[in-house]
Amino acid sequence: MTETPTTLAPVRLPARDIDPPTTISPQARAALEAGALGPALEWPAADDLDGWRRAVADSEAMWAPLAADMLAACRSTVETRTLGGVACHIGTPPEAAAAGPVYLYLHGGAFVFGGGDYAKAYAGLMADRIGVTTVSVDYRMPPDHPFPAAPEDAVAAYRALVESHGPARIVIGGSSAGGNLAAAAALMIRDRGLPQPAGVVLLTPMADLTEAGDSFRTNALLDVVLKGTLANCNGVYAAGHDLTDPYLSPLFADFAKGFPPTLVQTGTRDLFLSNSVLIHRALRKAGVEADLHVWEAMPHGGFGAFGLGDAPENAEIDAEVRRFIARHA
Amino acid sequence: MTETPTTLAPVRLPARDIDPPTTISPQARAALEAGALGPALEWPAADDLDGWRRAVADSEAMWAPLAADMLAACRSTVETRTLGGVACHIGTPPEAAAAGPVYLYLHGGAFVFGGGDYAKAYAGLMADRIGVTTVSVDYRMPPDHPFPAAPEDAVAAYRALVESHGPARIVIGGSSAGGNLAAAAALMIRDRGLPQPAGVVLLTPMADLTEAGDSFRTNALLDVVLKGTLANCNGVYAAGHDLTDPYLSPLFADFAKGFPPTLVQTGTRDLFLSNSVLIHRALRKAGVEADLHVWEAMPHGGFGAFGLGDAPENAEIDAEVRRFIARHA
Repeated sequence: MTETPTTLAPVRLPARDIDPPTTISPQARAALEAGALGPALEWPAADDLDGWRRAVADSEAMWAPLAADMLAACRSTVETRTLGGVACHIGTPPEAAAAGPVYLYLHGGAFVFGGGDYAKAYAGLMADRIGVTTVSVDYRMPPDHPFPAAPEDAVAAYRALVESHGPARIVIGGSSAGGNLAAAAALMIRDRGLPQPAGVVLLTPMADLTEAGDSFRTNALLDVVLKGTLANCNGVYAAGHDLTDPYLSPLFADFAKGFPPTLVQTGTRDLFLSNSVLIHRALRKAGVEADLHVWEAMPHGGFGAFGLGDAPENAEIDAEVRRFIARHA
Repeated sequence: MTETPTTLAPVRLPARDIDPPTTISPQARAALEAGALGPALEWPAADDLDGWRRAVADSEAMWAPLAADMLAACRSTVETRTLGGVACHIGTPPEAAAAGPVYLYLHGGAFVFGGGDYAKAYAGLMADRIGVTTVSVDYRMPPDHPFPAAPEDAVAAYRALVESHGPARIVIGGSSAGGNLAAAAALMIRDRGLPQPAGVVLLTPMADLTEAGDSFRTNALLDVVLKGTLANCNGVYAAGHDLTDPYLSPLFADFAKGFPPTLVQTGTRDLFLSNSVLIHRALRKAGVEADLHVWEAMPHGGFGAFGLGDAPENAEIDAEVRRFIARHA
């Protein structure tokens, strides 16, 4: 037997060129190429609140026309209402049954971006793609509303939906930071003794704000969407709270206390690959019914800007979410 | 919208150090460290049959004492019998029920290595670990018995087991090259109209002998077990047959014609990560019931030499296989 080494050395990787994958669709290849041309995003320091206010304003100005186009292109109707005191955008596809399931959706955007027009457009987009009534929560965000405002808003909207629809028809889901919030909200719901939702959908979730996962290093620069650490975003959201609090980093929750059936999605080039496989394993070890789906060479959020591209792999993600909701809700 | 680029550039990665993961067990970290110290394996050219004969003899001499120790340490009993004309080693754990499931196991070893004493030891090892009667097929191998000898031997052993046990109690599985053979045998069984096994277990399978998957490049040098291409091994096995034949590369099969429920296992640092996620997606797209399990920072075959280490992550793989067999067989 080899003796256990007392010190651990890094793996030294030489400079290398990674050829474009031949094992994905042409649209996915084009999305990787386009993404590689974009600059790495830079964020204000976690305590630079004015810097964050400017970054949010810039982001909203940049996204507004795209969000308007997205909304206009939706076949689902979208209306904005207050649920449990929280602004929500409700997308209803033509085929949604009145007694059908409800997808309580938490948008992505690094805990800081993606509210307002973008959250509204996503209500229509997800309703279109998943084919069920989608409630997109326009949750409060930093710098003015850090943790725990966002998961508290999600729980408040959930409680209102439980009144109107019952828990067994509700699936809570989200992508990236929204995946974190979906898991955190489900943990709060459990810990407060509220009725459990039918399922949880975690699309490439930011499960661990400490960014301990191996893929934060192995997939750095390979992921053309997230090109480096999100530490500043995590910091302005956490606002001094311990990052290992399970409501901030759901990976550290005790899932043996119970958790709804869960779908986890990621890609082999995703900066959040480790986040995703680690939370899947934590759920399975605790005996929770949990399905993992990993797409070849896919970066964070799918192929094309935040999964909005026309790659058939993105449609495959939708198909798995549809199947999961149909089975559980 | 971004225009679709007409040429695709590689991703240029600078030289970098990847720190040891903090998100795995100490035993797993030690296994990565020990693996990194080992040399990259070198193989004879695919057409150097005498070179292969020497390599096989050297491997058998090297493994014989370890295989003897492994067998001696097993709590299961192991006997060697001929099933359907094929040498098989039957491992029986003390707790196996007479009418319980049977795990038809195809050993790994790059299609060339791992027969004889090693295949016999694996009968006891897998019976110990999975807790069910395990039939380890001592299939014929190159250079003297290339494709399709190995999957034909697996099918012959399966047919004999169907006679004695019935198909609904048989799960076919294997690791690495054995995962390839398990899938290929299941396809032959389907295509010949034989009764289907209850399930298929594909542990880090060599699903695609063309090695097209992205992880053959992204995880090269990160995987401390398989440090580079297996092309020479694949070549001596294929012996001139088209590598895209689904019996050689099951990834290219038409799974819409049917396939048993399947478990797929891999790790984020596995050279076969893409093999694994691609065959899982191919199965799901065809509507086959298929579960994917991916372990953090795990190289090919588990932590420690071929998963024989004491890392708790290896035991987690066994637990998933046990659960899968209990559910289906």
